[in-house]
Amino acid sequence: MSNEVKDRETGNAFLPKFDAAGLLTAVVQHVDTGEILMLAFMDQEALDATRKTGIAHFHSRSRGKLWMKGESSGNTLNVIEIRVDCDQDALILKAQPAGPACHTGARSCFYRKLTGNRLETVGDKA
Amino acid sequence: MSNEVKDRETGNAFLPKFDAAGLLTAVVQHVDTGEILMLAFMDQEALDATRKTGIAHFHSRSRGKLWMKGESSGNTLNVIEIRVDCDQDALILKAQPAGPACHTGARSCFYRKLTGNRLETVGDKA
Repeated sequence: MSNEVKDRETGNAFLPKFDAAGLLTAVVQHVDTGEILMLAFMDQEALDATRKTGIAHFHSRSRGKLWMKGESSGNTLNVIEIRVDCDQDALILKAQPAGPACHTGARSCFYRKLTGNRLETVGDKA
Repeated sequence: MSNEVKDRETGNAFLPKFDAAGLLTAVVQHVDTGEILMLAFMDQEALDATRKTGIAHFHSRSRGKLWMKGESSGNTLNVIEIRVDCDQDALILKAQPAGPACHTGARSCFYRKLTGNRLETVGDKA
């Protein structure tokens, strides 16, 4: 194992590993219930804005720009804790949501489960 | 909203939306505790193998090939439920792990939290 890999995995330095598109994957998890609310991507700018404000910011891949979750809906995510994975290319944002996390109005974007070959709506959209 | 987008978000058809690299993002969550264990990527082949066997398979971006989690360590992930997000480009695999999910031996890959500008080891690696 290279020293670089070892430092990233076992060290206490925050060395985020952005992918070829300059992005990290971020999973938002409800800080109290553990429910996974949404998944999005962060570039350096979104990471900096999130750390500075305590409110989750992402990079929109479709619009190619910084995006504060809830900037239009008001359903912001107050980030309580940031976890980093072993190779530092993924984050968990443990957050307190101000409202539904999903733009559809669902509490979580993951409101359907795969049952056989179909999707079945579960949770608060059931 | 286009009909295609609407069908993907509200319908009961499983229409996974692979990205430009042919991948979905998959978050593995412990089916009992809700702990997020790891994050990886799935192409069509990995998705098919996971659904067929009930054991989590991923696509290794670094090695460019199908990978059964635990194929060398024995620490497989028994997939109990698959959740799909609103736009169907991300999955949650609710799983029962046979052992530590992280190749470092940690129960979860997310064993460090960001504290100020440093990482602090938490959980079972503390």
